[in-house]
Amino acid sequence: MQAKAVALKTRPDGMPKPDDFQIIDIEAPEPKDGQIQVKNLSMSVDPYMRGRMVDRKSYVPPFQIGEVLTGGCIGQVVKSASPDFKEGDYVSSAWGWREAFTESAEGIQSLGTIVAPASEYLGAIGMPGMTAYVGLLEVGALKDGETVFVSGAAGAVGSIVGQIAKLKGCTVIGSAGSDDKVELLTKELGFDHAFNYNDGSILGHLKELAPGGLDVYFDNVGAEHLQAAIMCMRPFGRIALCGAIATYNDTSPRPGPNNLSMAIGLGLTLRGFIVNHFDHLAGKFRSDMEEWVTSGQIITKETVYTGIDQAPEAFIGLFKGSNTGKMIVNF
Amino acid sequence: MQAKAVALKTRPDGMPKPDDFQIIDIEAPEPKDGQIQVKNLSMSVDPYMRGRMVDRKSYVPPFQIGEVLTGGCIGQVVKSASPDFKEGDYVSSAWGWREAFTESAEGIQSLGTIVAPASEYLGAIGMPGMTAYVGLLEVGALKDGETVFVSGAAGAVGSIVGQIAKLKGCTVIGSAGSDDKVELLTKELGFDHAFNYNDGSILGHLKELAPGGLDVYFDNVGAEHLQAAIMCMRPFGRIALCGAIATYNDTSPRPGPNNLSMAIGLGLTLRGFIVNHFDHLAGKFRSDMEEWVTSGQIITKETVYTGIDQAPEAFIGLFKGSNTGKMIVNF
Repeated sequence: MQAKAVALKTRPDGMPKPDDFQIIDIEAPEPKDGQIQVKNLSMSVDPYMRGRMVDRKSYVPPFQIGEVLTGGCIGQVVKSASPDFKEGDYVSSAWGWREAFTESAEGIQSLGTIVAPASEYLGAIGMPGMTAYVGLLEVGALKDGETVFVSGAAGAVGSIVGQIAKLKGCTVIGSAGSDDKVELLTKELGFDHAFNYNDGSILGHLKELAPGGLDVYFDNVGAEHLQAAIMCMRPFGRIALCGAIATYNDTSPRPGPNNLSMAIGLGLTLRGFIVNHFDHLAGKFRSDMEEWVTSGQIITKETVYTGIDQAPEAFIGLFKGSNTGKMIVNF
Repeated sequence: MQAKAVALKTRPDGMPKPDDFQIIDIEAPEPKDGQIQVKNLSMSVDPYMRGRMVDRKSYVPPFQIGEVLTGGCIGQVVKSASPDFKEGDYVSSAWGWREAFTESAEGIQSLGTIVAPASEYLGAIGMPGMTAYVGLLEVGALKDGETVFVSGAAGAVGSIVGQIAKLKGCTVIGSAGSDDKVELLTKELGFDHAFNYNDGSILGHLKELAPGGLDVYFDNVGAEHLQAAIMCMRPFGRIALCGAIATYNDTSPRPGPNNLSMAIGLGLTLRGFIVNHFDHLAGKFRSDMEEWVTSGQIITKETVYTGIDQAPEAFIGLFKGSNTGKMIVNF
């Protein structure tokens, strides 16, 4: 099967540009023993991929120039030469950034019975949703009734963080990068308060909206957001360090918060994590989140681009705030 | 009883100077009902006191201009009008920076049977020792056999941190501010490695001495030390934020570590604390530490100044690295 795919042409310097990517033709051949041939339906673009475009040691190895990028995707089996899969099965794999692939069935996950649209398994019921779930409940050690702040709250992770916190009876404050997103948070997603971080000082907003302080801060943004949140933490508060999208396109290291020593007197915990650290909770997450999504207790938002050639634009859009909720590329 | 005491004359700007303090005459009168009259034997000077000299909201209220400073001290009861104390009892109180006092017995702790010299109850068996104990074992969640780095390792807290870690079978690296102190750490206190942080880059020393990385960093210093330690942490490492003596005399906020986002991929925890957060462990701490000190498993070091008029110099010396181990003023 012929397919199109996206390769890394040059390593981005600062903000990625369309020219850093190249659409190429690939072949997804007949599967050999143990392989499956899959046609992708939806692929994910995620902020963490920016880190893999830099040639440095990190928790995932860097992408190589000229090679097809990888990332989360949902597809359907076209032909199977593996006893574990049959034609028509929905699968979740890391073989994104391409319309189709033929690969060893090992490491490819059958989704089994799915109860929501396939793309939800890239969003609320997928990696971003699980990131929100473990980051808030395990890393942030959220307790019922606490006050929670989440930055990048209209994004794939943030929008779920805030809604889980509401399910736990918490007061939830979110920041987002436009007035439309702010309105979405309070009007549709049930946040108690939200503010536009491009309008006024973040610290000023937080002091006004959380006069009693914060118990948990879920950090997707870093930089000024992190420093302002530290200023507002209550004693024994927890900060879940999930991402620092404000800094991903920095070309030199940016100084950290100048008030980290406040953590001493207040007994604050700052803890970094990635979702893979919590693989043992995948089963519990999926059953909880499928229930929340299908019952409407958690509302999911997607920003959808269509066609493999749109994938670079979708990815670049993550850093321009073009997405509300999960950024998806459908084929 | 007439006595001398030290009052705060002016709030220090940057490094404290002798002129910021004033020796004054005070009276410790006959005790009234519920009071005790105490002659102090030893007082403590500690880095945290610098923070109380600034007029700002913190975990302890600021010292007031013209008033006698307070801080940990050990004394003996001269006259008691409290049923809980009798003449000759050793007591631990916060009425330091004065030769004698008469105060309500409430809040003053009888030391009961003491098994080591009184000043040890300001050091290894006192607040600094307990800071080391809870910071390493609770906040740092030390596990046997791990690799531990402690900064300011020749100080009152750091020298105990390293020795407790050795008792737990760990590999211990310490930093200190002079070659003499470095030699003390490795030759007398049993540290595996030590380096002079005024000689070469901290990161360079750490990479050489802990090529496999660090599991726990006990931070007494902050600034460059913290950034270098983050660079060297192993996955799921813990950083106990205890102090940031390098920054206490800063006159404007100093940027934090520029590599805090490494905590995400590595799953690092940075947790601040003060010893009071762990009051419930005081009994266990005292019995463990009395055993370690009296058996010689933990060696204690003191730098002793004599006379109340030397107290300001002793305090200022903390920020110049004049002390090895616990800085004490004896009367």
